[in-house]
Amino acid sequence: MARPTRTTREQFVDVAMRLFWQKGYGATSIADILQAAGANAGSLYYCFPTKQDLLIAVLRRYHAGIHPMLLAPAWDGVEDPIEKIFALLARYREALMATDCTYGCPIGSLALELHEPDPAVRTWLAANFDAWTGAIARCLREARGRLPRGTNLRELASFILTTMEGGVMQARTHRSPATYDAAVRQLRHYLSHLEAAATLTERKSP
Amino acid sequence: MARPTRTTREQFVDVAMRLFWQKGYGATSIADILQAAGANAGSLYYCFPTKQDLLIAVLRRYHAGIHPMLLAPAWDGVEDPIEKIFALLARYREALMATDCTYGCPIGSLALELHEPDPAVRTWLAANFDAWTGAIARCLREARGRLPRGTNLRELASFILTTMEGGVMQARTHRSPATYDAAVRQLRHYLSHLEAAATLTERKSP
Repeated sequence: MARPTRTTREQFVDVAMRLFWQKGYGATSIADILQAAGANAGSLYYCFPTKQDLLIAVLRRYHAGIHPMLLAPAWDGVEDPIEKIFALLARYREALMATDCTYGCPIGSLALELHEPDPAVRTWLAANFDAWTGAIARCLREARGRLPRGTNLRELASFILTTMEGGVMQARTHRSPATYDAAVRQLRHYLSHLEAAATLTERKSP
Repeated sequence: MARPTRTTREQFVDVAMRLFWQKGYGATSIADILQAAGANAGSLYYCFPTKQDLLIAVLRRYHAGIHPMLLAPAWDGVEDPIEKIFALLARYREALMATDCTYGCPIGSLALELHEPDPAVRTWLAANFDAWTGAIARCLREARGRLPRGTNLRELASFILTTMEGGVMQARTHRSPATYDAAVRQLRHYLSHLEAAATLTERKSP
């Protein structure tokens, strides 16, 4: 048997990424992966001895892709740090619309599907959430002059992830973007209140 | 074979409810259900010809239990309608703490696990979300004098579900209540801003 090339390994990750997202991790069998990759079992086992090894590779791939694949296209031409947040949320709306509202955030779906994930899997799920909220926290830091002093930016960033994940979950269930739009509008409303409060405090300051 | 009694039927629902929640729907086999119920396949198939029929019975049970099992205990002794909302959110925190942060909302988990749910399943998932947000919307209506005029109460209620679901998802991933607490604090903060804005407008009114 020829030793699988780097490309073979990456192809398995491509295929697994797509299948785990479309069908879920539990519902994707090794046979599904082999069929979709057009590969034999030996070459899969050589690259990924267990399905969980493949899952970790998928989670690492998502993590590596957050900036180039998600944030960079979402933020192309958007300068305002608060608008960057809403531009990112708008990408998730596009994903909902493009999939007839069957879209689920791949990380969020795995986080709930895997009932007792091994520490390595959980670490990579958490690393994905952390990278997302870290990027949002940087936007908030850039905009901190427009937010009330003492605003916990990391906590607010985590709340923005909460909004996206909870909104996607409900849109998917109702097969309608309405609840997602509602969540984003409420978040926008909350941020406007924070900006207004910051302006008010500034005016009161000597 | 004796015709299964109503109790047998309910026992299957009890067992399925627990197993779907603990292991997920996909990972629970018919054999798991039979073993946990100490029943034979004939009696299960008599009550529930397919696993999906059992899932719908579980979702109907959750729906019927929202008031007696979830809201009534959470709201015992709580009069203030806004505090009722936080008392309900506090129940989810208790569930997180009681399970070493492995708790997942059973409805939210199913909503993301089932990648292409049949319309009947989706209807019952949506009905559960609707009953939850409906109860929260009633709290908000009771408190509407404390919120800015024109606040979309149904939308705000759906945002509160978003907060719970997104917060639980992250707490479970990080195996820590910190992100859940952060989400609840941010929501509290948002509601305080709304209450303050309502007071301000009232003062300005003639």
